Amino acid sequence: MSQTREVAERLSWVAVDWGSSNLRAWAMTDDGQVVARAGSERGMLALTPDDYEATLLATIGDWLPAEGRVPVRVCGMAGARQGWREAAYLPVPTRLDGLARGAVRPALEDSRLDVMLLPGLCQHPDDAGRHFDVMRGEETQLAGLVAREPRTTGPVCLPGTHAKWARLEAGAITRFATYLTGELYQWLAGQSVLRHSIGQDDLAEPGGHEAFVAAVQEVAAAPETFANRLFGLRAQDLLDSGLPPGQARGARLAARLSGLVIGLELAGARAALAEGETVTLIGTETLAARYALALEALAIGCRCVDGEAATLAGLGLAHVTLARAPRT
Amino acid sequence: MSQTREVAERLSWVAVDWGSSNLRAWAMTDDGQVVARAGSERGMLALTPDDYEATLLATIGDWLPAEGRVPVRVCGMAGARQGWREAAYLPVPTRLDGLARGAVRPALEDSRLDVMLLPGLCQHPDDAGRHFDVMRGEETQLAGLVAREPRTTGPVCLPGTHAKWARLEAGAITRFATYLTGELYQWLAGQSVLRHSIGQDDLAEPGGHEAFVAAVQEVAAAPETFANRLFGLRAQDLLDSGLPPGQARGARLAARLSGLVIGLELAGARAALAEGETVTLIGTETLAARYALALEALAIGCRCVDGEAATLAGLGLAHVTLARAPRT
Repeated sequence: MSQTREVAERLSWVAVDWGSSNLRAWAMTDDGQVVARAGSERGMLALTPDDYEATLLATIGDWLPAEGRVPVRVCGMAGARQGWREAAYLPVPTRLDGLARGAVRPALEDSRLDVMLLPGLCQHPDDAGRHFDVMRGEETQLAGLVAREPRTTGPVCLPGTHAKWARLEAGAITRFATYLTGELYQWLAGQSVLRHSIGQDDLAEPGGHEAFVAAVQEVAAAPETFANRLFGLRAQDLLDSGLPPGQARGARLAARLSGLVIGLELAGARAALAEGETVTLIGTETLAARYALALEALAIGCRCVDGEAATLAGLGLAHVTLARAPRT
Repeated sequence: MSQTREVAERLSWVAVDWGSSNLRAWAMTDDGQVVARAGSERGMLALTPDDYEATLLATIGDWLPAEGRVPVRVCGMAGARQGWREAAYLPVPTRLDGLARGAVRPALEDSRLDVMLLPGLCQHPDDAGRHFDVMRGEETQLAGLVAREPRTTGPVCLPGTHAKWARLEAGAITRFATYLTGELYQWLAGQSVLRHSIGQDDLAEPGGHEAFVAAVQEVAAAPETFANRLFGLRAQDLLDSGLPPGQARGARLAARLSGLVIGLELAGARAALAEGETVTLIGTETLAARYALALEALAIGCRCVDGEAATLAGLGLAHVTLARAPRT
């Protein structure tokens, strides 16, 4: 049996995480197994509404059986106003098992597709210290976390380009805050004046680990020095005879830059933590490990949850909910 | 008499501020009057060492008399390692009337030119809380400030792409710190995810002044929230029905962004100020006025000094010092 035919025969539904710069798709069985994976670099920023269906078919068309309609459950920026079709934000606080009620169906030409786009979350300012904020995609990971571990409570961190810190309580998200951390790091390392000094980001280079931890602690102790410490990396590269030469030099400074940017985020997030609270980290292994190291440097406990598993659990919950609901 | 001939007849020396992205030149008389100005967009980043003499001649060649050698005194990045010829950093603390002792003469072909490149300053870490730092160009403005007002003491701020805070004492610079403020703002406004929300930066738009001041105060009170408040600008644009439409909307958010970035710098610089100290601001009128507004919002007093006048006074001091010294 060919691989394609096996996928088509076992396929029950398709999970899709469609972000700004790429999409990832999983062929799912009835019992939540992944039988195939696919992806594309055509994210929301590269697409107009008319492009989405063709992009989806180019990515998962091989999985579809000749007959029948396959549910496709999509989270992320495809549901943004500039995406395929807008799935309006649900306001927090909100229960995480209710995301499907905000899902919308885009117009489709191929009768084999049954697509639903999940909504993001928004937050308005209030007396309890909430600020304007939005998320699209991470809410589905949070829903998956709660679906898998219903008793999860307290702070959850989702590192990334726009890192999210959410607070969970009894199956609901009560508030959240986004930090520009990943985007800031990418620019500082690749385009700012620091680009001349920053090398490959690898904490395994000699001294990288220590440089990262020291930077986290320094900026968390004095966050007002952030913009000064950034320029200090360039000056250190020009002046510090103690830095190693070659690749280790750039890696050392990259480790320090990463520590400064993540440390500033943690300094902000720490202010919302209760004494002794443990942070749940959702993300890729590498990034979650780095955040775990940074949290440890600030004496904050944490545990890591796989990001892909959370996404699939969240989309799976939406799939089950939508299968039960009358078709809109 | 033609303008060119008048300049050539009155010209005593040429002042040059040669930065990363442009150069500015002034034709000076014996008694410190400016008889002509010229400029070029060919800064250090666009030049190899062999390009400098031709660029200088293309900019000020019209001013030179047919015979005789004209002193040209240059501050800024032309003296960097990647510039025309390196004028090695002088370490702080150092007296500001001694910059000329670190000046170097680049190789020249045109016998009408007598060029000297002034050095920048560097700072190494020590027990007194100094950090690695460098400056090239601002030290000449500080020297000019002290030449014009010898009793100037205390904190001096030079806003810009890489904003400098220096401390003066009895004609010497004792320490300084650079903040990546201007570069950070340019990237956030023009290239980051905020570019969709940030409009023309004009505090004169309705509400702009208030938005700027509020942002300065918020980030100075809680600098650890900086990266969160940055993303909050994007969320506010998406969600806040209280924002005005059109040009005023983008201007309001630009004012707030400017306040966040400058506020973070001031929060850092404030930590080094003694109670009741007045800050001397050196810069262009617009930027100095904005910093004055931000300082006022934090109840810090300041006075403004014109940046061009400081540059010319600093180069003038170097010119006089070099004229007295034996030719190297």
